[in-house]
Amino acid sequence: MTVQIPAVLERARDLTVPALRAAVGRLESSIAQVAAYHLGWMDVSGRPVAGNGGKAVRPALAVLSAEAVGADAELALPGGAAVELVHNFSLLHDDLMDGDEERRHRPTAWKAFGPALAILAGDALLALAEDVLLEAPGEHGARAARHLTGATGRLIRGQAEDLSFERRMDVSVAECAAMEGDKTGALLACSSSIGAVLAGAPAHTVAALGEFGHHLGLAFQAVDDLLGIWGHPEVTGKPTWSDLRQRKKSVPVTVALNAGTPSSERLAGMLAGGGPLGEEDLALAAKLVEEAGGRDWARREAERQLELALACLDAVAMPAAVRDDLVNLAKFVTTREL
Amino acid sequence: MTVQIPAVLERARDLTVPALRAAVGRLESSIAQVAAYHLGWMDVSGRPVAGNGGKAVRPALAVLSAEAVGADAELALPGGAAVELVHNFSLLHDDLMDGDEERRHRPTAWKAFGPALAILAGDALLALAEDVLLEAPGEHGARAARHLTGATGRLIRGQAEDLSFERRMDVSVAECAAMEGDKTGALLACSSSIGAVLAGAPAHTVAALGEFGHHLGLAFQAVDDLLGIWGHPEVTGKPTWSDLRQRKKSVPVTVALNAGTPSSERLAGMLAGGGPLGEEDLALAAKLVEEAGGRDWARREAERQLELALACLDAVAMPAAVRDDLVNLAKFVTTREL
Repeated sequence: MTVQIPAVLERARDLTVPALRAAVGRLESSIAQVAAYHLGWMDVSGRPVAGNGGKAVRPALAVLSAEAVGADAELALPGGAAVELVHNFSLLHDDLMDGDEERRHRPTAWKAFGPALAILAGDALLALAEDVLLEAPGEHGARAARHLTGATGRLIRGQAEDLSFERRMDVSVAECAAMEGDKTGALLACSSSIGAVLAGAPAHTVAALGEFGHHLGLAFQAVDDLLGIWGHPEVTGKPTWSDLRQRKKSVPVTVALNAGTPSSERLAGMLAGGGPLGEEDLALAAKLVEEAGGRDWARREAERQLELALACLDAVAMPAAVRDDLVNLAKFVTTREL
Repeated sequence: MTVQIPAVLERARDLTVPALRAAVGRLESSIAQVAAYHLGWMDVSGRPVAGNGGKAVRPALAVLSAEAVGADAELALPGGAAVELVHNFSLLHDDLMDGDEERRHRPTAWKAFGPALAILAGDALLALAEDVLLEAPGEHGARAARHLTGATGRLIRGQAEDLSFERRMDVSVAECAAMEGDKTGALLACSSSIGAVLAGAPAHTVAALGEFGHHLGLAFQAVDDLLGIWGHPEVTGKPTWSDLRQRKKSVPVTVALNAGTPSSERLAGMLAGGGPLGEEDLALAAKLVEEAGGRDWARREAERQLELALACLDAVAMPAAVRDDLVNLAKFVTTREL
C-alpha cells in the first residue's frame, strides 16, 4: 500500500516552523545550536541544512484539531509548537538513556555534542513548551498548558516503564499496552486535541479528539515496534534489530514471550541472558518473535487501533475536508515503510 | 558570626513537605524512589530516613512573599512546592552533567541509581512543578506558572553558560555575574515573589520582592563559590576544591584570573592545561586565587549583595514580623559555615 505524504503535513510545518524557530532562537547559544541540530535545521558545525526537519505530525494534528471545531489554524500554532517541543525534549533524553547513537541517519545529539548539552537542550525544550502556551494569545493558554503537562507526565512515566521492562522478563501484554499508551499515546492524544482546547471547545469534543489521538498513538507505536525489529536501516535511520539489542519489551516481543510456544521459551532464554547479543543471536531472536506470533499480532494491532481511531472521529461534527485530512494523516503515519 | 536556623525554615518545611510528598507520590514508582532518595526522605534501598530533607529555603521564601502582601501562607504552598521541585530538578541534572558523585554526604542520585533514572527523575520534577501551579486553587495559578517558566529558562541558560565557561579562559567578571544571576538569582527571585503572584499582588510589589531574591541569590552564590574552593568536606558534603577540580569559572576564580597579578598568570597557566589537577595542584590553585584577591572579592560581594537585598525590602510595606523573618533568612543563607 502506498500513501502519499499528505499536504496537511507540509502546511502545518510551514505554519509552525517559524514559531518553533523563534522559540529556539531565545535559548542560550550552545543550547540553541544543539536544538537546531537535533531538529534537523543545522549540521553539526552550525551550517544551515536544506529542508525543515522532521515530518511535524504532531503540529499537523494540533492544527487540524482547531479546524475540526471551526477555529483558524493560527490559533493552534502555540499548541503545535509546544507539542513538537515536548516530543523533541523526549527524543533528546531518550536517545541518551537508551544509548542510541543514530537518528535520522545522523549521530544523535548526545553523540555529536556530549551528554551534558543533550540533557540541557532537552530541559530547555521542555521548559520552552510551557512558556509558549502560557504566552499564547487568547484566554485558553493556561488550560492548554495543563493539558500538556498531563501528557508530559504520562510520557515520562511511559519512558520509566519502558526502561524498567528491559530488566524484567514477566511483562504482560496489558502492561506493555499501558506503557505504550503513556509513552506514545498521551502526547498524540494531546496533539490531536490541543488546538480544540486553545479554541475553547467543550470537554466532550476535546475528549473525543483526544481518544482519536490515543488510538492513533497505539497504532503508530505498533508500527514503530515492527520497524524496531524488522525495519531496514536505510529507511529507519537506526541499526537493524535495535529494539532487540536493548532487550526492549515492545508489543511484538511481549506477545511472543507470553504466547506459551516453544519459540517463546527459546526467546525468553536468549533475552534473559546478561551478555550482549551478537548479529546471529539477533537474527534468531527476530525469527523467534515471528514464529511465536508477535509480528502478526502487532500488524493486526496496528490495523485495529487505526480503526478505533477513525471511529472516534464520528463523535465530532467537523468539516468534511478536515475529516479527510485527519483520516489521510492517520493512514499515513500507520503505514510508514511497512 | 553565628546565626540560628530561623524558625521560619522549619515552619515552611512543615507546610510544604506534605504537598511535595503528595506530588512525588503521583510519579511512576522507580522515578518516585529516585526523587524520594534525592530529596532526603529515603535511603538507597527505599527505607524512610529521619528528617525532612533539605533546608527548604525556597519554600520559606515563597511562604514569606505571600505573607508580605497580607495573604495566608496556605496560598503560597503550590508556589513553595513548585520552586522546590524546580530546584531539585536542576540539582539532579547538574550533578550528572558536572560528574559530581556526592551531595549531602551521600552518593548523588545518578551514582546511586544510574544516569537514566536521574535524568528521568529530573524531567518528572520539572513537569510536576508546572502541574502543581496550574492546578493551584485561586485565579493566579497561570500567572505563577509563567513566572516560574521564566525563571526555569534562565536557570537552564545559566547552567549552559557555566558549562561553556569551563572550556574558556577569557571569562570576564561581568559574564560570570550574569551567569550566576541566571543560574542562582532567577530561581531565588521567583521563590521570593511567587507567593505574592499567587496572592494577586501588583506588579511593582512582585518586582521588588523579586529583586530582593535576585540579590540574595547573588550573595548566596558568592558564599557557595567560597565553599566550593575553601569549604570543608564535612560541612559541604562535597570533596575539597571541587570547583577547581572542574575548572569552574566561579566568581573568585574569575576575579583572580582578571586581576593582572603574577598569581593570576600562574593560575591561568594551571587552569588552561588539559590534564586532571592533583591534590598539590589544587592546593596551589586555591592559594593563587586568594593571592590574586578572589577570596576577598567574593567575601565583599556576598556582603554587598546582602545589603542590596535587604534594601529592596524597603520598597514593600509589610508586617514587621514578616520583614524580620526575611532578614533573618537572608542572613542565615549567606553566612553558612564561613
